[in-house]
Amino acid sequence: MLSGILETVLYVDDLDEAESFYGNVLGLTRDSRKDGLFVFFRLGEQMLLIFQRDAAKTARSVPAHGTDGAGHVCFSVAESELAIWEERLRSKGVAIEQHQEWPRGGRSFYFRDPAGNSLEIATPRIWGFPDCGDRH
Amino acid sequence: MLSGILETVLYVDDLDEAESFYGNVLGLTRDSRKDGLFVFFRLGEQMLLIFQRDAAKTARSVPAHGTDGAGHVCFSVAESELAIWEERLRSKGVAIEQHQEWPRGGRSFYFRDPAGNSLEIATPRIWGFPDCGDRH
Repeated sequence: MLSGILETVLYVDDLDEAESFYGNVLGLTRDSRKDGLFVFFRLGEQMLLIFQRDAAKTARSVPAHGTDGAGHVCFSVAESELAIWEERLRSKGVAIEQHQEWPRGGRSFYFRDPAGNSLEIATPRIWGFPDCGDRH
Repeated sequence: MLSGILETVLYVDDLDEAESFYGNVLGLTRDSRKDGLFVFFRLGEQMLLIFQRDAAKTARSVPAHGTDGAGHVCFSVAESELAIWEERLRSKGVAIEQHQEWPRGGRSFYFRDPAGNSLEIATPRIWGFPDCGDRH
């Protein structure tokens, strides 16, 4: 069996904007940056890789990839922290695009990164997983 | 702090091809499918969401997203299972595009899904994380 997803990728136009947003607004830990190509973040034992979309498409030392358009990533938080995150984002000027209650239980809300990618913060119960707080 | 990445997304043209590839070749557990729109898989407490790229872009009950071009996802396996996975993929007719040794340690190899997305199977040490086997 594959153990998990190690790298999740989004593409952006402007790496400075992305580094500020994912680092300062979402509070992710920056792992590394290569100017013009990528800025990488870590969450627990997962990586969020942000590539400059045009640079990612050109031949590099690894197989090329790169997309145009809005990607989507959903982050998990404990039920008890969902409202805190919404307030934090609002206070930093991020518009909340939609709230959602899900059929399996759990809640989420949607917003955009500066490149237009659709981001979501959700409680793990939306997929029937235990709440983050229950594991610790 | 955000707890982790709950949903990682790839876009494809043909959901039947994707369901067969991610389900039968990669052995992921299918969570659900909506014909014409998506097929969802689960790995541990993470979701891999595969959307039909054109359908995802049109207005739905949640904010629209959708990309063109090759995305990238990296899956983790224990060091002891990397070679087994390579042999499994070869036996199912999947071409291995590249092997890589990484500066922080660890190894990975690359291949493509039927839609051309760049996939990678890696040991977690490529990011300095403990090997999957070490956690259990």
